[in-house]
Amino acid sequence: MSPKITTELLKQLRQVMKNPKYVQEPVQAYIVPSGDAHQSEYIAPCDCRRAFISGFDGSAGTAIVTEQHAAMWTDGRYFLQAAHQMDSNWTLMKMGLKDTPTQEDWLVSVLPEGSKVGVDPFIIPADQWKRMSKVLRSAGHDLVPVKENLIDTIWTDCPQRPCKPLITLDLSYTGVSWRDKIVALRSKMVERKVMWFVVTALDEVAWLFNLRGSDVEYNPVFFAYAIIGMNTIRLFIDGDRMTDPHVREHLQLDSTLEPEFKIQVMPYRSIPSELQAVGAGLSPKEKVWLSDKASYALTEAIPKAYRYLTPYTPICIAKAVKNTAETEGMRRAHIKDAVALCELFNWLEKEVPKGTVTEIIAADKAEEFRSQQKDFVELSFATISSTGPNGAIIHYKPVPETNRTLSVNEIYLLDSGAQYKDGTTDVTRTMHFGTPSAYERECFTYVLKGHIAVSAAIFPNGTKGHLLDSFARSALWDCGLDYLHGTGHEVGSFLNVHEGPCGISYKTFADEPLEAGMIVSDEPGYYEDGSFGIRIENVILVIPAETKYNFKNRGSLTFEPLTLVPIQTKMIDVNLLTEKECNWVNEYHQKCREVVGAELERQGRHEALRWLLRETEPLARVQ
Amino acid sequence: MSPKITTELLKQLRQVMKNPKYVQEPVQAYIVPSGDAHQSEYIAPCDCRRAFISGFDGSAGTAIVTEQHAAMWTDGRYFLQAAHQMDSNWTLMKMGLKDTPTQEDWLVSVLPEGSKVGVDPFIIPADQWKRMSKVLRSAGHDLVPVKENLIDTIWTDCPQRPCKPLITLDLSYTGVSWRDKIVALRSKMVERKVMWFVVTALDEVAWLFNLRGSDVEYNPVFFAYAIIGMNTIRLFIDGDRMTDPHVREHLQLDSTLEPEFKIQVMPYRSIPSELQAVGAGLSPKEKVWLSDKASYALTEAIPKAYRYLTPYTPICIAKAVKNTAETEGMRRAHIKDAVALCELFNWLEKEVPKGTVTEIIAADKAEEFRSQQKDFVELSFATISSTGPNGAIIHYKPVPETNRTLSVNEIYLLDSGAQYKDGTTDVTRTMHFGTPSAYERECFTYVLKGHIAVSAAIFPNGTKGHLLDSFARSALWDCGLDYLHGTGHEVGSFLNVHEGPCGISYKTFADEPLEAGMIVSDEPGYYEDGSFGIRIENVILVIPAETKYNFKNRGSLTFEPLTLVPIQTKMIDVNLLTEKECNWVNEYHQKCREVVGAELERQGRHEALRWLLRETEPLARVQ
Repeated sequence: MSPKITTELLKQLRQVMKNPKYVQEPVQAYIVPSGDAHQSEYIAPCDCRRAFISGFDGSAGTAIVTEQHAAMWTDGRYFLQAAHQMDSNWTLMKMGLKDTPTQEDWLVSVLPEGSKVGVDPFIIPADQWKRMSKVLRSAGHDLVPVKENLIDTIWTDCPQRPCKPLITLDLSYTGVSWRDKIVALRSKMVERKVMWFVVTALDEVAWLFNLRGSDVEYNPVFFAYAIIGMNTIRLFIDGDRMTDPHVREHLQLDSTLEPEFKIQVMPYRSIPSELQAVGAGLSPKEKVWLSDKASYALTEAIPKAYRYLTPYTPICIAKAVKNTAETEGMRRAHIKDAVALCELFNWLEKEVPKGTVTEIIAADKAEEFRSQQKDFVELSFATISSTGPNGAIIHYKPVPETNRTLSVNEIYLLDSGAQYKDGTTDVTRTMHFGTPSAYERECFTYVLKGHIAVSAAIFPNGTKGHLLDSFARSALWDCGLDYLHGTGHEVGSFLNVHEGPCGISYKTFADEPLEAGMIVSDEPGYYEDGSFGIRIENVILVIPAETKYNFKNRGSLTFEPLTLVPIQTKMIDVNLLTEKECNWVNEYHQKCREVVGAELERQGRHEALRWLLRETEPLARVQ
Repeated sequence: MSPKITTELLKQLRQVMKNPKYVQEPVQAYIVPSGDAHQSEYIAPCDCRRAFISGFDGSAGTAIVTEQHAAMWTDGRYFLQAAHQMDSNWTLMKMGLKDTPTQEDWLVSVLPEGSKVGVDPFIIPADQWKRMSKVLRSAGHDLVPVKENLIDTIWTDCPQRPCKPLITLDLSYTGVSWRDKIVALRSKMVERKVMWFVVTALDEVAWLFNLRGSDVEYNPVFFAYAIIGMNTIRLFIDGDRMTDPHVREHLQLDSTLEPEFKIQVMPYRSIPSELQAVGAGLSPKEKVWLSDKASYALTEAIPKAYRYLTPYTPICIAKAVKNTAETEGMRRAHIKDAVALCELFNWLEKEVPKGTVTEIIAADKAEEFRSQQKDFVELSFATISSTGPNGAIIHYKPVPETNRTLSVNEIYLLDSGAQYKDGTTDVTRTMHFGTPSAYERECFTYVLKGHIAVSAAIFPNGTKGHLLDSFARSALWDCGLDYLHGTGHEVGSFLNVHEGPCGISYKTFADEPLEAGMIVSDEPGYYEDGSFGIRIENVILVIPAETKYNFKNRGSLTFEPLTLVPIQTKMIDVNLLTEKECNWVNEYHQKCREVVGAELERQGRHEALRWLLRETEPLARVQ
């Protein structure tokens, strides 16, 4: 891929940074965060402002433009991609490396005395505003809100904000009605003595009302906010979506309801003024609950003394623990997903040697097989279909300029997933369609050992996910290998493929303890720049474990893999596995045979079934 | 031990909480933190205010007294001890358990509207003040500084603040002169653009000036502060200690020096006013660097705009990475310490069956053997000499009321260490002088597996210690066992046995990455309330490791055990060890034989040498 030429755009941006039409006083730096007004990770095209100004379109990154510099902060997943996509106007700031300055420290080091740093107050989360503002202020600078987004002023062909139809989910999918979710939320509000709760994250609005949308690609969400009071429900949403009779019925908009369940529908853009009105009407001691990651603009709408901010909202925490309807749905979705991948890998095995399958063709074929499955909605993220050196670009997405042909000489890494109405999938398999080298098998086996170490881990109730991260690295570390990304993220239930408040990562963040019913990914990897990438990813469900002593009745937890796709045995150096690890692989493959085999049989997919049986032959360790 | 009766004291405290002589307005709650004005972990008797008011004398705990309640927050190490030492006036708040409220949340839940919460501003760290003050304010209460310590007003027989002679350390111990340390500190100050640095932690003052003291038991420190400017050095210290000719020569107080190395000696209590004078004389942009754990009172002495606060000071970070003189000293100290423990365990083996050895006698004997070693100064902490059920009290210290006799029927746990002029030791061994049960051996072996997993861990340069914590727990977790304390702490070099900025713990804190030269403890355990305690602790040095692929030249690290004391093989169930673990034990014991054996020989301690040889016979795994 060739970098985006940004010289002219940066010139324009630097002009509007001084233009009194948009800024009260000139700003010497302008921050372009990754997110949208909901602090979403995946964003609609109209919100891809950072990609527009820099060319770098990875899912995480913050751009800062000063009069002299343009710098981009991103993490290890995107170092290579960002370097490829950005031109020489940009400096890449590799987050997580020791010598990389924070955005604040860098600003302090480059700005002239008494500078103003501008940012869109609807895009920057309040917690980040606070942190940056403090550091800048103590260095004699000022962080200032710029109401008009400066990127939008120079983005002449900016697309419209999407406003697509909604999907209603009944109890068989959600397990709990939106009314019961409101009741539970209000009881949490009473517990914390707050009168109002502001729902700002798109997946939280969707989950709360048992609605889904398609305003953002891959994430079945829709642009909306909600304000929940003890007796009122206000939903801020645009378009004619509320005229859909299914939606009206689902939300009981036309029924005679107790007033506390009556939903008032309001325009999307009216939330700041409505929130200000709420703030103005508060009696002393009446608090408004917001995520500390809500935008600075919305947070400021409530007077400081009335704010109750927490890192995770009660919706985020309730959403994380899947109920039986949701876990059963996730199981079904993963079986269908496995069927599609068995079909794909069987097809690839036949086609790759012909030299006609490119990364894009393979990705499209994966989508085709998935779309044949019941309740398929869309993909859950951009398929990472990468062969050879492209596999080392951790969040690679094939585009025509980089599109490589799969061959029997290179490792192929496929990280893909889908949204089904009953659940969200995310699976990575690394395959070789010829004969892998001893080194490739060695690395693959260390990654597998790490994957198993997490998946088979037993730990006490109350353990936070970050404590499991080094289990995934231990075998790699022993040989001096590592990977520069976390080991796992939480997965939504027909919702965002990345969600909070848990994860398995070396980065310490305020994660909540793992609980039975939570669903996370387990995806260690190893990447050799310029030659190959290896990752083995299953989605795994936290379940109670049986242990000899059960932590003095504190309770034991472990994981159950929901993903049931064979792990290529050809890539495994069996002699590097312990007996326990070898048994784990064999039992996992036995389960794939039984569960996915039955579904392949039921769907009459006999060739894929034969492939599955061949790929799940038990490993035998040489004693 | 019987609890301290606190009814009368609490009554007196509640009276002074309303007495206008001490408080401007009545306070409805009074916080009694653990520390002293230097936020020390170990404190002088005059600073043991929390123990005075509650009876609980563990090393960590915060008491809060309201008009109705008295509550004590402490961590898992002290749950049993605190419960034993406090009377029914007190509620124990078990930190780390899910349902235990934070101090702030608890205050909010019990206080009447608009309450004042008092605290001594010299004792509470600024970061803690900030956190508590914010939560209290948002709930309508106020955290207020009470200048006169309210405990001191009711503590009629409060001892004097100690003021003992100083020890000067020459280059053979410290490796770096105090002048060079000042030069290095000033270069860090230039890097961060600060003009002043305030040294508030006692061990930082001691390290910076290459001085040691004995004002606080076990910690070779002395009451002092320092303010370092770019051209001035002010040392705040009391007594006639500065008249000692060794000290005067060491600090070159009477030499003609460049002015920037001339030390001005000032009274200990004059620091707030001197700091205020510094603050008043600052030009814009001149900053003063303080630890964010410095007291609220000292932090407030500098106007907010001029403060530069960091969680770890440059002294803390420099002190953590031991130079060659220090690591060589630590090695020597640990060899001498091992000699003392070989003597002790040989003696215990003979004496315990006679039924005459109590926990206190054993602890005294350990001190006696240590004191025979060259450069012995004092113990590095109160010896934990515990048998049977006392072993389950994690930071137990035997006192006459609890003193139990060692027997051939119970496990004995000894956690002890010493200060030598060349280094600080801290070692735990768990022994059985009869025949351990299968369950005791099983638990011991899991703990040993955890100990080895950390000690033998290989990890990339830049790894933070908390990532290694779960390695120590994995074998225990597999069977549903765990321990409620961290796995390791940093150890000073003839300084505090607990120091920052690293550690190996499940608690996430802002730890700095491990570096070659850092020294930490490795001490997993298992505790069965009412029956026994097991812990295996070595002090280990971070060293470069050789790995096959060396993390793409990022560098590999591992540990070298400095502690060289046999691990009782009788307690090991060899069949639960892997071959690698078994080899680790055998190699460790081989090194004990070689290194400690040679020293025992040199000191003519032949009986202890025979004990060492007997105890370090290689383990043999049944294949």
